[in-house]
Amino acid sequence: MNFRIRAATKEDCRDISRMITELAVYENMPDQVEISHEELERDGFGQNPFFECLVAEVPDEHKSKDGFTVVGYAFYFYTYSTWRGRCIYLEDLYVMQEFRGKGIGKGLLSKVAEVGKDKQCVRLQLSVLDWNTPSRDFYAAKGAQDLTVSEGWHFIRFDGQDLDNLANEAPKE
Amino acid sequence: MNFRIRAATKEDCRDISRMITELAVYENMPDQVEISHEELERDGFGQNPFFECLVAEVPDEHKSKDGFTVVGYAFYFYTYSTWRGRCIYLEDLYVMQEFRGKGIGKGLLSKVAEVGKDKQCVRLQLSVLDWNTPSRDFYAAKGAQDLTVSEGWHFIRFDGQDLDNLANEAPKE
Repeated sequence: MNFRIRAATKEDCRDISRMITELAVYENMPDQVEISHEELERDGFGQNPFFECLVAEVPDEHKSKDGFTVVGYAFYFYTYSTWRGRCIYLEDLYVMQEFRGKGIGKGLLSKVAEVGKDKQCVRLQLSVLDWNTPSRDFYAAKGAQDLTVSEGWHFIRFDGQDLDNLANEAPKE
Repeated sequence: MNFRIRAATKEDCRDISRMITELAVYENMPDQVEISHEELERDGFGQNPFFECLVAEVPDEHKSKDGFTVVGYAFYFYTYSTWRGRCIYLEDLYVMQEFRGKGIGKGLLSKVAEVGKDKQCVRLQLSVLDWNTPSRDFYAAKGAQDLTVSEGWHFIRFDGQDLDNLANEAPKE
């Protein structure tokens, strides 16, 4: 099947928003999505965007059963290692169920790697849930290292009231 | 002891670079540091910076035994959750050994939380090594969740030849 990968535009935010929810359903956390397409438009397509996104598009004759032609996305941003420098971080990689097994996910991942290399990034990083064996196998087959297993890195998060408390304790000038 | 936390300037990059190496020594990975102060200057203090940094400074009369007045730093950047929106990511938090236990680390962390709140970030995230119990306890005491433990998130990385291979396989227009 023909597909095309291109940089997302503001007009793609409704499709991206739809697929973000589809991915959260797959990850068994559908209630977690609180982002609207308006927020994606504001945060990704204004000055100093917080993220970039690629979308995979199929020709109209191959549209999904619900009539969609944008059938996958890769959502990423730039991070920085104080040891190695510029990195690219893949927050989400998703292909609609009915379009899997056609190389679209691989195409999106490779394209993100290419974007990263163009920006002199030395690492492409991402996270996966430990029960998500298909994804872990997919990345491992392409040479990815699992740093939680090999080096013992853990993810830590402050949010909600704990983040507010922390911010309120900041030293004043 | 008096200390002051302020946004880093280009002129702080030599101090930041020195402390990056000190932190890597503490983390048992001193050979990993390949970043120079020139690269920090280019990537953090030009247009579209890849990171931001706060430094902790003590008055001249309290300078370190080696004569340094910049004695800690917090190195961070912005990331994005497709579920919740803007996030701030703390890559490094470090205070020189002889200045620990004086609230400087706590001050830096709180200030990063404040910067994040000012930018409407809903999460402050970071990673720690599993053997680094003092750091894990420090963050946990302030309300942080360990998402690797609670939800099973693993860090995945492509670099070196594996990243090159991936980029070379990107679909062409």
